[in-house]
Amino acid sequence: MLKAPNHQVAGHKAHEGKLGPLVDDSGHFYKPLQDVERGSRELAFYTSFSSTTKVPSQIRRFYPVFYGTKLLEASDGSGLLLHLVLQDLVSSRRKPAIMDIKIGSRTWYPQSSEDYIKRCLQKDKQTTSLPLGFRISGLQLPASKESELWKPAKKVVQGYNVDDVKLVIRKFVPSNSSANSDLDPDCSFASSVYGGSSGILSQLLELKEWFEDQTLYHFNSCSVLMFYDRDSVLKGGNSGAEIKLIDFAHVVEGRGVIDHNFLGGLCSLIKFISDILTEGSENNGISTGNSIGE
Amino acid sequence: MLKAPNHQVAGHKAHEGKLGPLVDDSGHFYKPLQDVERGSRELAFYTSFSSTTKVPSQIRRFYPVFYGTKLLEASDGSGLLLHLVLQDLVSSRRKPAIMDIKIGSRTWYPQSSEDYIKRCLQKDKQTTSLPLGFRISGLQLPASKESELWKPAKKVVQGYNVDDVKLVIRKFVPSNSSANSDLDPDCSFASSVYGGSSGILSQLLELKEWFEDQTLYHFNSCSVLMFYDRDSVLKGGNSGAEIKLIDFAHVVEGRGVIDHNFLGGLCSLIKFISDILTEGSENNGISTGNSIGE
Repeated sequence: MLKAPNHQVAGHKAHEGKLGPLVDDSGHFYKPLQDVERGSRELAFYTSFSSTTKVPSQIRRFYPVFYGTKLLEASDGSGLLLHLVLQDLVSSRRKPAIMDIKIGSRTWYPQSSEDYIKRCLQKDKQTTSLPLGFRISGLQLPASKESELWKPAKKVVQGYNVDDVKLVIRKFVPSNSSANSDLDPDCSFASSVYGGSSGILSQLLELKEWFEDQTLYHFNSCSVLMFYDRDSVLKGGNSGAEIKLIDFAHVVEGRGVIDHNFLGGLCSLIKFISDILTEGSENNGISTGNSIGE
Repeated sequence: MLKAPNHQVAGHKAHEGKLGPLVDDSGHFYKPLQDVERGSRELAFYTSFSSTTKVPSQIRRFYPVFYGTKLLEASDGSGLLLHLVLQDLVSSRRKPAIMDIKIGSRTWYPQSSEDYIKRCLQKDKQTTSLPLGFRISGLQLPASKESELWKPAKKVVQGYNVDDVKLVIRKFVPSNSSANSDLDPDCSFASSVYGGSSGILSQLLELKEWFEDQTLYHFNSCSVLMFYDRDSVLKGGNSGAEIKLIDFAHVVEGRGVIDHNFLGGLCSLIKFISDILTEGSENNGISTGNSIGE
């Protein structure tokens, strides 16, 4: 009844005897609490977040619903292990396009150990975290043909530079997608996925407004997951575009200070997406992609 | 004719045979270009900034006017040295209250040398830069009595923790100031200095809006100088509150990316100032300072 999720684009995966999350067929996502420190921090966050009255409901919808914890047989066969029971965000969707974006130019934080800081700093410098304020951790884009899926390997994604990231954010909303990722993206679906009053940009701006004010939590090393129904968009329907924040193993208390690291990175992402829409509207909704690498 | 400025709160000072900036009596501030790398980067910034048409005039007013360069006898007696000729921001003011705030949780940047990164990182961790996204570099607050001035020593300012900074931002706008810096601040002048359509908060918000969009420059290790006429405020007059950005020795090109590091820190500062005003308005304009250290 439990199985590895179909549409996981980043993080540890439950396959070939490895430990990873599981899903059931009634909309639950089971995330194993393997590492004591991270696991307990993530559980503490979900417990606090789900019980506080200080988070407005229009913000709460950007987080997976938390159903508690459950002892389950771990996917690596190592025996019973405590799992977080969360809302399954994408398994029920047919052909979801998904991008996992780790927010913040700094993934470490004052409470981190010297060793952890060193490793994070190294990775922040090697990836686009430092220059852009965020990095892509994984993505998938279903193509028109049933069998095709653009899902770059982890190593490829980890090697993205600033120009790659700009391009990938454009390539996420094409009409001409195929497994051939070298095609110039036309960004035809930017307006229906990124734009509009219920599109991704609008949701990111709502989130930004909250981050300008909230001093409850600092979301270190947390990701924004952006996803939409590729199938529906290709058929001219609603994109069902959504953003959700995920991965709270490094969340700490805000102690009266805003999360300026997350906010800065979020604003940087917003600027890129907003530029694609501006450019698109200047070109009557059809952008050519010529301005890439300007 | 040239002399050391009266109201310098941070940076190298031209006294006792040391190298520092000079002012004349016609509103010019002469900043020596001592270090080749920093000096040429700051000159390059002023040259670029003063000639670009991409900066709106309402933003340009937040920067000192640049009049070019001039060879002058250096204040340390070492001979002729090239100086930036800038607008003198505060010398003409009688009893200015001044605070120099270095913005950004990170004062280093991708182009920095390993050694520079190490030193900056150390200082960002020791000060409030890392937790708050900014640190106070210096301040002065003239008191009611002619002879009194609250101007904490550099070592004291460098030792400020998060709570100290919160308190100092409140202490910057009291009616009851004196040289006794241990008094609880009443924040009576928050509304006339921080508030209002021409107050400091309003100016910071204008600057923030520009930073959400501008990708021309990254203002690494740059300061926001906040100042107002203490004398005028004490007599019930206009505060003449202004903000200016200063210190551009580490500015680099934005290359199509917003300055998320500066923006995050700026938003953090804005939140503190905005909270003081909210609290003040909830208390009929008089806040008690009881909420400090909450």
